[in-house]
Amino acid sequence: MLTKSDAAEAVRAAKVRGKLTWVAVANAVGRPVAWTTAALLGQHPMSKEEAEAAAALLGLDRDAVEAFQLQPTRGVESPSVPSDPTIYRLHEVVQVYGPTIKELIHEECGDGIMSAINFRLNVERVPHLEGDRVVVTLDGKFLPYQWE
Amino acid sequence: MLTKSDAAEAVRAAKVRGKLTWVAVANAVGRPVAWTTAALLGQHPMSKEEAEAAAALLGLDRDAVEAFQLQPTRGVESPSVPSDPTIYRLHEVVQVYGPTIKELIHEECGDGIMSAINFRLNVERVPHLEGDRVVVTLDGKFLPYQWE
Amino acid sequence: MLTKSDAAEAVRAAKVRGKLTWVAVANAVGRPVAWTTAALLGQHPMSKEEAEAAAALLGLDRDAVEAFQLQPTRGVESPSVPSDPTIYRLHEVVQVYGPTIKELIHEECGDGIMSAINFRLNVERVPHLEGDRVVVTLDGKFLPYQWE
Amino acid sequence: MLTKSDAAEAVRAAKVRGKLTWVAVANAVGRPVAWTTAALLGQHPMSKEEAEAAAALLGLDRDAVEAFQLQPTRGVESPSVPSDPTIYRLHEVVQVYGPTIKELIHEECGDGIMSAINFRLNVERVPHLEGDRVVVTLDGKFLPYQWE
Amino acid sequence: MLTKSDAAEAVRAAKVRGKLTWVAVANAVGRPVAWTTAALLGQHPMSKEEAEAAAALLGLDRDAVEAFQLQPTRGVESPSVPSDPTIYRLHEVVQVYGPTIKELIHEECGDGIMSAINFRLNVERVPHLEGDRVVVTLDGKFLPYQWE
Amino acid sequence: MLTKSDAAEAVRAAKVRGKLTWVAVANAVGRPVAWTTAALLGQHPMSKEEAEAAAALLGLDRDAVEAFQLQPTRGVESPSVPSDPTIYRLHEVVQVYGPTIKELIHEECGDGIMSAINFRLNVERVPHLEGDRVVVTLDGKFLPYQWE
Amino acid sequence: MLTKSDAAEAVRAAKVRGKLTWVAVANAVGRPVAWTTAALLGQHPMSKEEAEAAAALLGLDRDAVEAFQLQPTRGVESPSVPSDPTIYRLHEVVQVYGPTIKELIHEECGDGIMSAINFRLNVERVPHLEGDRVVVTLDGKFLPYQWE
Amino acid sequence: MLTKSDAAEAVRAAKVRGKLTWVAVANAVGRPVAWTTAALLGQHPMSKEEAEAAAALLGLDRDAVEAFQLQPTRGVESPSVPSDPTIYRLHEVVQVYGPTIKELIHEECGDGIMSAINFRLNVERVPHLEGDRVVVTLDGKFLPYQWE
Amino acid sequence: MLTKSDAAEAVRAAKVRGKLTWVAVANAVGRPVAWTTAALLGQHPMSKEEAEAAAALLGLDRDAVEAFQLQPTRGVESPSVPSDPTIYRLHEVVQVYGPTIKELIHEECGDGIMSAINFRLNVERVPHLEGDRVVVTLDGKFLPYQWE
Amino acid sequence: MLTKSDAAEAVRAAKVRGKLTWVAVANAVGRPVAWTTAALLGQHPMSKEEAEAAAALLGLDRDAVEAFQLQPTRGVESPSVPSDPTIYRLHEVVQVYGPTIKELIHEECGDGIMSAINFRLNVERVPHLEGDRVVVTLDGKFLPYQWE
Repeated sequence: MLTKSDAAEAVRAAKVRGKLTWVAVANAVGRPVAWTTAALLGQHPMSKEEAEAAAALLGLDRDAVEAFQLQPTRGVESPSVPSDPTIYRLHEVVQVYGPTIKELIHEECGDGIMSAINFRLNVERVPHLEGDRVVVTLDGKFLPYQWE
Repeated sequence: MLTKSDAAEAVRAAKVRGKLTWVAVANAVGRPVAWTTAALLGQHPMSKEEAEAAAALLGLDRDAVEAFQLQPTRGVESPSVPSDPTIYRLHEVVQVYGPTIKELIHEECGDGIMSAINFRLNVERVPHLEGDRVVVTLDGKFLPYQWE
Repeated sequence: MLTKSDAAEAVRAAKVRGKLTWVAVANAVGRPVAWTTAALLGQHPMSKEEAEAAAALLGLDRDAVEAFQLQPTRGVESPSVPSDPTIYRLHEVVQVYGPTIKELIHEECGDGIMSAINFRLNVERVPHLEGDRVVVTLDGKFLPYQWE
Repeated sequence: MLTKSDAAEAVRAAKVRGKLTWVAVANAVGRPVAWTTAALLGQHPMSKEEAEAAAALLGLDRDAVEAFQLQPTRGVESPSVPSDPTIYRLHEVVQVYGPTIKELIHEECGDGIMSAINFRLNVERVPHLEGDRVVVTLDGKFLPYQWE
Repeated sequence: MLTKSDAAEAVRAAKVRGKLTWVAVANAVGRPVAWTTAALLGQHPMSKEEAEAAAALLGLDRDAVEAFQLQPTRGVESPSVPSDPTIYRLHEVVQVYGPTIKELIHEECGDGIMSAINFRLNVERVPHLEGDRVVVTLDGKFLPYQWE
Repeated sequence: MLTKSDAAEAVRAAKVRGKLTWVAVANAVGRPVAWTTAALLGQHPMSKEEAEAAAALLGLDRDAVEAFQLQPTRGVESPSVPSDPTIYRLHEVVQVYGPTIKELIHEECGDGIMSAINFRLNVERVPHLEGDRVVVTLDGKFLPYQWE
Repeated sequence: MLTKSDAAEAVRAAKVRGKLTWVAVANAVGRPVAWTTAALLGQHPMSKEEAEAAAALLGLDRDAVEAFQLQPTRGVESPSVPSDPTIYRLHEVVQVYGPTIKELIHEECGDGIMSAINFRLNVERVPHLEGDRVVVTLDGKFLPYQWE
Repeated sequence: MLTKSDAAEAVRAAKVRGKLTWVAVANAVGRPVAWTTAALLGQHPMSKEEAEAAAALLGLDRDAVEAFQLQPTRGVESPSVPSDPTIYRLHEVVQVYGPTIKELIHEECGDGIMSAINFRLNVERVPHLEGDRVVVTLDGKFLPYQWE
Repeated sequence: MLTKSDAAEAVRAAKVRGKLTWVAVANAVGRPVAWTTAALLGQHPMSKEEAEAAAALLGLDRDAVEAFQLQPTRGVESPSVPSDPTIYRLHEVVQVYGPTIKELIHEECGDGIMSAINFRLNVERVPHLEGDRVVVTLDGKFLPYQWE
Repeated sequence: MLTKSDAAEAVRAAKVRGKLTWVAVANAVGRPVAWTTAALLGQHPMSKEEAEAAAALLGLDRDAVEAFQLQPTRGVESPSVPSDPTIYRLHEVVQVYGPTIKELIHEECGDGIMSAINFRLNVERVPHLEGDRVVVTLDGKFLPYQWE
C-alpha cells in the first residue's frame, strides 16, 4: 500500500512525464484546481470516482487510487519555518501582517476567526504594466466565539 | 524616546479610549486601512505628515510622532507558531496549503515567488446566507528567478 | 493602563485576599464558571457590565474594568510543552490519545474538526468509591471540510 | 518482527480494505471503542485473546498478534505542536483553556491533578439544531499531592 | 504582593543572612526537609501555620506568608536541558537509565507509572571508604493503566 | 554487523518469544539486574563472557555478541522531553524537584555533584496498604569541585 | 525516478570519478559557474538542453536528466544553524553583520530589501601578499516596499 | 554604566534627532562606513579616540564613550531565523546558496574556510536600467585546514 | 542583594574603570587566574577572604562580597549554540572533534569520562613564527564507569 | 559509493574485528593519532596514499578508499546538546568556562579568536596519585579581528 506522501511524489513524477498541468488534472477530476492540487499533494481525501479519474489521466495504478481516498494527516512534517523561498514569503506575510489581519477581522466581524476548514483558496496571475502580479485569495467562513 | 512597539501599545490604548476604528485612523492618515494598521502596529515607517495626522486623531504626543517615522525591524518576536487562534488559522493555511500555492504559482508564472515587499493586502467581510465570510486578499508582484 | 495579563494577576491576588471562589465570581458576572475563569485569566473579552460586576466583587478599579473588555491575544507565551503537572496531564492526553480522538471524529462525523471557537468546556468533580474523579468535557461544533 | 507503529499502519490499511469501523473492531475485541482504537494505534498493550480477536477480524498474521501484545513506548514522535487541524484544535484547547482547567481542578478538589493513567475517554457525536457537535469527555481519577 | 518565585529568592537571601540550614527551617515548619525545601522554592503550597513558622524563622514579612500559601504553577521556566552540572547529572540519569527504569517498573508491576504526585523524595549523604556517596530516593505510588 | 540499538530491539523480541524476565537474564550474566538491563538496551559495554551468556539465554547469534561488547554512544536520540508517560514522570521529578535536590546536596556535602558515572541504581516494588509503591534509588559518589 | 537530492549525490560522485571541476561542468552547460553548481546541487531547475549537457559530461542517465529539470523545493533540511565550518562562517557574518547591512541598505536605498530572487552571486579567489582572500559577491535588485 | 546594546539604541535615536547618516559618522570616526556602523551597533570595540569622535558628533556623553570601547559579546540574541525581511534575505542566501559557496571555495582554494575574523564587508548601491541593485561584498582571508 | 550575574557585570565595569587585568585580580585573591575569572563571572563560590580581597581591589561594596560567596547555578542562560565568535570556536571544536576525543579517551583509559568537576583549565598565548597561538588545556580526572 | 559516515561505521567495525587501535592506524597512515581518528570518523579528507594505507590495515575495499578522500561536510547531525556523557562533559566545559576562556584570550591577545581551522588537538592520559587524569590540549592560531 502507498502512503499519501508517496502518492504525491508519484503524481509529481507522472505530471513531468505526461507534461500535464494541474488545470488539466482538475478538469478530469471535476473539482476546482486548488482543491485538486491540495488533494493530490495529500491534504484532502478524494471520493472513489475522483481518485479513479485522476489516476487514469496520470497513468497511475490501484495503489494510488486507494491512497488518494485515505483520510489525511494534514500539514507538513518539516520545521515550522519553511526554507523554500516561494513558501517562505507566505510565512513572512503571516509574521509581518498577521496582527494586522487579526485587528481588521475583529474590527469588521467581532471576536472570532476566519475558518481554515470551511475555507477555499484561489491563486491567480493578474497582468500588470509594471510586471504581472500573483493574487492569492483566502476565503473562509467567519466563526464567532460562541459559548452557550 | 518611544520604541515602535511601545508606540503600538499606545495606539491600541488610545483607540479604546477614543472609541476609534482603524478605518477612521486610515482616513485621517490618507492611506489604505490595512497599510495604516500595519504601520501603526510597527511594521512600516510613516512620513512626517502621516505620523502627525495619526497622532493628532489618537491624541498622542511628539514621541509617538517620532516613533511612527522610525525604520522598523519587522516581524514578531514570539515563537514561530502563533498561539492566538485568529492568527494561527493563517499559519495553518500556510502549513496545509503552502505547497499547493507554490505549485500553482509555478504553473501559472514559472519559477519564482509572489513578492511580500511589492505587496498589498486587503481584509473584507463578505455577506453570505450560511454565515458571513472573511476574505483576505494577498496581492504581490511575481518575481521570476533571474540570474543574468 | 493594565494589560490583560497584569489584570489576571490582580484577579488571583484579589481572590486570595477576599477568600472568593471562581463560582462566586461567575455568579456575580452571570456567566458559566469556566467561561468566567477563562475570561478573567485573559482569554475572552468581557462586556462592560460583566467587567464591572467582576471588578466590584473583587475590589478592583477602573483599569481592571477596561482590561477585562480588551480583545485578547489568546494562548500562552510559555514553551509548547507545559511543565506544571496539572496542565501537563492534559498535554499528555493529546499526545497519547490525540490520534485516537481524530480517528473517532472522522468515523462518526466524516472529514472535519471539533471547533475550538464554537466551543464550551466544563470541569466537574464526580464522587467515586475508589477516589473521586475529575471529568473535563470538551464540547465543540463539528465543522466539516467544505470547499464550495 | 513488527513494531507497534508498523502494526498500526497495517491496521489502518486492513480497515480500508475490509471496510471495517473501529466500532466493529472494538466489538470483536470486547473492549470500549476508544480504548481499542488507542491500543491498535500502539498506545496500549493487548492481552493474547484481544490481539487474536483483532487480528482475525482484520485479516492480519501472527506478527501483528505479537506486536499488539508488546509493552508500548507511548506518545508521538512528531514535534510537540501537531500540524493536523483535527488534532491541533485539542492542542489549542490546552493552550487557551489549560490554566482555566487547572484553576477549576484546584478549586473543586484541592492541590493535585486529573490522572492520565487511571483515565478513560469518550468521543460522541451529539445532534444539534445549528449543526451537530463533537463531545470529548476526559475522565480521570483525582490524585492529590500527598507526601507522607 | 510577592510571586512565589520572588519569595524563593527572598528565602535564599534570608538563609545566607541568618546562616540557617534547610534542616533548621524544616524543623521550625514541622515537615520533612525535602518537602520544606521544595515548598519554599515555590513547588508546593503551605498551610497558613507552616508559612508563618517559616517566615518567623527567616525574618520575612506578611507578603512572604501569603506567597508561601499560593497554589504554585510547578516546574521550571528555563530550557528543558538544565545547564547547572549538579542538576544536569539528574537529567543524564533520565537520559541514560530512563528506558531501564521503565523496563523494570513494567517487569515488577505491570503496565503503569511511578506517580510523581503521590510521591516523596529523600537526599542523603552516605559515608564510604572510597569517598562519600549521595543517595537520592524517589518513592512514588505505582499507578496501573486502568480504563474501566 | 549489528548496531547496539538494533541489538536492543532483538533483545526485546527474544524476551517476548522466550517469555524471559530481566532478572533471569541478569542471573545468567552474573551482574545486577538494572546494570544488565541498561547494558542490553545499549548503555554499557559487556565483557565477552557476559555477552556470550546473554546471547545464549536469549537465543541470539554472533553479531549480537559483538554488538553487546561495543563501546556505546550513550543517551537517547529522541527529543529532550520524553513523551512516554512512565519516563516522563522521571523528567517531571527533575523539573519539579531538581533545584531541591541541588540545595540539599550542597547543604550536606558542599559544592559538587552526585556522579552519574560512579553510580548505581535500583528499582524496587515496595508493598503498601494503600497501593504498592515504586522506589527508585539513585546512588552516586559525591564529587566536590576541586581545581588544584 | 530520482529526487533532486539523490541527483546531487550522484553529481558529487561523478565529479570525483571523472576528476571534473564545477568550471568544466558550467562550460559544458553554458551558464555561470555559481548558477550551475547551485542548479546541480538541487536549487534551480534546468532546461532540457542544460540537463542533457550536464548529464553527458558527468556520465549520468535519463533519470538524472529528468531530476535536473524538476522544480526544486529550495533550502536545506538541516537545522537552521549549520555545523559545517565553511558554511557556518557565512551564518556568522549574517549574525554579526546582518543589522549593519540592513542599516546601510536603508541609508543608501530607503525602505526595502536586496532581492534573493533577482539575484546572482560570485565566488572568487583574490591573491594577496599576506595570504589569498575569498571574495563572495552578493548582487541583488533593490526592491522598495511598495503598497499601491 | 551603559551596555553596548543600550549604547546602540542611543546611537539610533541620536541619528534620527541629528538627521545624521552613517557615512557622516564614519567620516568623523575616520574608519570605513560598514566597520563604523557595526562598531556602533555593538559588534566591535572602538579605540578611545574613535569613541570620542563618534560621541561628539552624535551628542552622547561619557557613558557612551566607555561603552563604545568595551569588548563586545558578538552576535544577536534573537532566534536563529531572523524575521525582519531585509535581514532574512541574507539568511535565505546562506540556506539556498551556502553549499554552492562551500563547493566553490573548496574548488578554488582547497579544504578550508573564508575567515569571518580577518574579514571586511562593503554594501553598495549600483545603478541599473531595470532597477538599481544592492551589492554586498564579503571579503575574508582564506584559511586552509592546517594541523601541523 | 546582588545576584551573581549582576555582580559579574559590576566586575567587568570595575575592571574597565580601574584598568585592571584578571591576572592582577587573581594575584590579589591568591588563586589561579582561570579559576578567579570563572568565579567572578559567577561560576564558582568564593570564600569570605577571597571575596573580600577581590572586592577591595575592584572597589566594590558589601553586596558584591556576599554575591561572590553565593552557591552558583552554573552555565549560561543563552541558547545552546553560542553566537559570539570567540566562544563559538570552542563549540565548533566539540562538534567537529567531540567524537574523536571520546574515541581517544576510551582507547587510552577505558569506558569513562574526563571529569568537568575535578577539573582545571589553563589558557596561554604561545609565541610562534607564523603567528602566535592560543593553547587551552582541559585537565580533568578520569572517572571510569563503576557500578559496584 | 559509500558516504563518509557509512565509511566511519565500517572503520569502527573493522577495528573491533581486527583488534586494532587508533594509534596503530595512525602509524600506518603516518599522521598524528587525533588527526587520523578525526579523518576516519569523517571530519577530514585524506590523500589517496593515506586512504589506501588506512584501508589496507583495516581490510576495507575501494569504496572506503574513495570515501576517505571525499571533501567532508563537517560537524554532527544530532541535536546541539550531546547526550553521550563523555562528549557532554566537553559541552559542559564550554557552557561553564566559555566566557572565562573568552576573557583570557582577550586579555592575553586582544580582540580575536583561537582558530578552529589552523588548529590541532591532543588527548593524553596523565598518571596521578589520586587517580589518572585526561588532559585535552586545544592549540589554535590566534586570529585578530582585522578589517583593513
